[in-house]
Amino acid sequence: MTLLSPVHAILARTGLDAIVLMPGATFRRVFAKDFHQMERPLQVIVPRDGDAVAIVPNLEMGSFAPIGFPGQVFDWRDEAGYMGAFEAAGAALPQLRKGARIGVEGQRMRVFDLIALQKVLPGAEFIDAHAEISALRLHKTASEIALQKKAIAISEAALEATLQVIRVGMTETEIESILLRHLFSNGADGLAFAPIVAAGDNAAKPHAHARPDYAIKPGDALLFDFGGSFQGYHADITRTFFVREVSDFDRAFYETVLAANARGREVSRAGVTASAVDDAVQVVLEQSQFAQYRRHKTGHGLGLDVHEAPQIMRGNHQVLEPGMVFTIEPGLYRAGEAGVRIEDDVVVTEQGIECLTSFPRELRLVG
Amino acid sequence: MTLLSPVHAILARTGLDAIVLMPGATFRRVFAKDFHQMERPLQVIVPRDGDAVAIVPNLEMGSFAPIGFPGQVFDWRDEAGYMGAFEAAGAALPQLRKGARIGVEGQRMRVFDLIALQKVLPGAEFIDAHAEISALRLHKTASEIALQKKAIAISEAALEATLQVIRVGMTETEIESILLRHLFSNGADGLAFAPIVAAGDNAAKPHAHARPDYAIKPGDALLFDFGGSFQGYHADITRTFFVREVSDFDRAFYETVLAANARGREVSRAGVTASAVDDAVQVVLEQSQFAQYRRHKTGHGLGLDVHEAPQIMRGNHQVLEPGMVFTIEPGLYRAGEAGVRIEDDVVVTEQGIECLTSFPRELRLVG
Repeated sequence: MTLLSPVHAILARTGLDAIVLMPGATFRRVFAKDFHQMERPLQVIVPRDGDAVAIVPNLEMGSFAPIGFPGQVFDWRDEAGYMGAFEAAGAALPQLRKGARIGVEGQRMRVFDLIALQKVLPGAEFIDAHAEISALRLHKTASEIALQKKAIAISEAALEATLQVIRVGMTETEIESILLRHLFSNGADGLAFAPIVAAGDNAAKPHAHARPDYAIKPGDALLFDFGGSFQGYHADITRTFFVREVSDFDRAFYETVLAANARGREVSRAGVTASAVDDAVQVVLEQSQFAQYRRHKTGHGLGLDVHEAPQIMRGNHQVLEPGMVFTIEPGLYRAGEAGVRIEDDVVVTEQGIECLTSFPRELRLVG
Repeated sequence: MTLLSPVHAILARTGLDAIVLMPGATFRRVFAKDFHQMERPLQVIVPRDGDAVAIVPNLEMGSFAPIGFPGQVFDWRDEAGYMGAFEAAGAALPQLRKGARIGVEGQRMRVFDLIALQKVLPGAEFIDAHAEISALRLHKTASEIALQKKAIAISEAALEATLQVIRVGMTETEIESILLRHLFSNGADGLAFAPIVAAGDNAAKPHAHARPDYAIKPGDALLFDFGGSFQGYHADITRTFFVREVSDFDRAFYETVLAANARGREVSRAGVTASAVDDAVQVVLEQSQFAQYRRHKTGHGLGLDVHEAPQIMRGNHQVLEPGMVFTIEPGLYRAGEAGVRIEDDVVVTEQGIECLTSFPRELRLVG
């Protein structure tokens, strides 16, 4: 076993001639360390045959050296630019020149990184192998799940503390600000993503931004989709409340989403496909009176990336296995009126699933 | 004037046949709205001739519609996948089929986005036009600068509050956690980037991560590089302190960086090139007894992106003009011992520069 063994396993499985890793989730899982991905390219190229090669900004060398990278490192300095290091890396990889098939993380690698590599490995073919590469993160270890639980505990405590002080007349951004304060006072060390705090018609937009000029009023849906991070792992939780009162129509709307969420937690287990889980959840929505308000798949994997495999989506025939973590987050959205989404994070176990999120799901009035 | 006028100005200036915008800083500046960039591609293609085209995930349509996009929109749903929308977009852009030169944001567009577009616009040439496209954000408006000042005020207040409670024996992560709490209790609505809180030898790594197992001790350098965000704009500030005491050697080390920082603020003004600013700053370091400890350029532009143009770097002949905002952040790094960086954010004015950051720079003992 070396640091690169998981990468070599993917090379063997896919028949690719090389894999390129960028800073980010997979990099962190492999090297137990991450780096900024901004204007300075940092790449690791792992060929099937021969030594791995890294291209590293000189200012990162103090952080890169301790990871124990087993291969050649070409560093570059701001004043010289990065192409010299790319050229040296290309020269060190003669086996990747002609007709080589090189897998890259298509959802992570940026075009300028690709262009630099194409210049020094002319004749190689670059293939989006994001799914295959990120597959090495599909199964979470016990320590990863422990960190996810910590991130979720922080996030659920922050949500409850926020609900305690919400009052009619507060704006969405005021509520967001309270939530943020509670996340960090409870121990978050980052945000999984910019939180969504959306009321009334804004809740009908699945990825809404909090508005500074909208004050919540009785009868509004109030949707929170957010997550604190802890040591690189993330919560991703959605709960929807109603402000002071709820119409019978909105109650039925809510209960439909809740039934779909419950169905997702019920059918998820090892041996079932991601497609089958989505199908079971969507059928609940499709057979309801609210079928027209569906907008999206059931969920996504959750780990070092907030959105990763397995996508819980019709057509994804990935079989669920113990250690996979994903979200179950059905939603319904009535444009201009209201939206409801209820999202849990679950891990597949030998016996079924463990629901990592435990915030109550029963319809709750706030404010 | 339409929403797309700034994009058409770039098309005219560069002679490109089309420009592709991704969610992110430029998108936000053009459309006053931003979107997640995860597994669902969202692209806007603006041809020089003919109507613009957008490819939008269906679940984002409620948020996309209000931006008033002047062109055709092809949306796609999770269950169908995105290639149908790309094919429809390609069919709507016959002028971009053969030999067209299409500029993309190379530091923002990811490879899977590029591959999808290449499939439906075969024969087109895709060019990294990141510099040309992001140039439309080079000059900040008064309201942008006001938001940056707000983010900076929040961040400086959080730093001072953190310094008040630091004690010998605290770990780097404890201090980071205190800083985070103060950022959000002071009104930040996000983080410019994961903060760097690094002491002793860790401060010698320019992009260090806080360690849970390192307790600060007398004589340590203690470096903070961080920024709160406010409504999409960011602070990016670095200050370095010493814990309780400082050796004469470290004092000279610190004063050298401070002199370089001061030199940068002194020479920056409209009409000077970014290269000349970096040169003036680097010369201070190079002519000191600590020349060997230089690791990076002077700074980078700061706006909706935390690292953007103008790069303050030798070889960048961009002439500074009023409204440009950038960092001045010289540093010196003695591996295994200590690092010092002092970073300010400045805006070029008609008269010279205005320094947006005002946290004192004189050597300060803490703890």
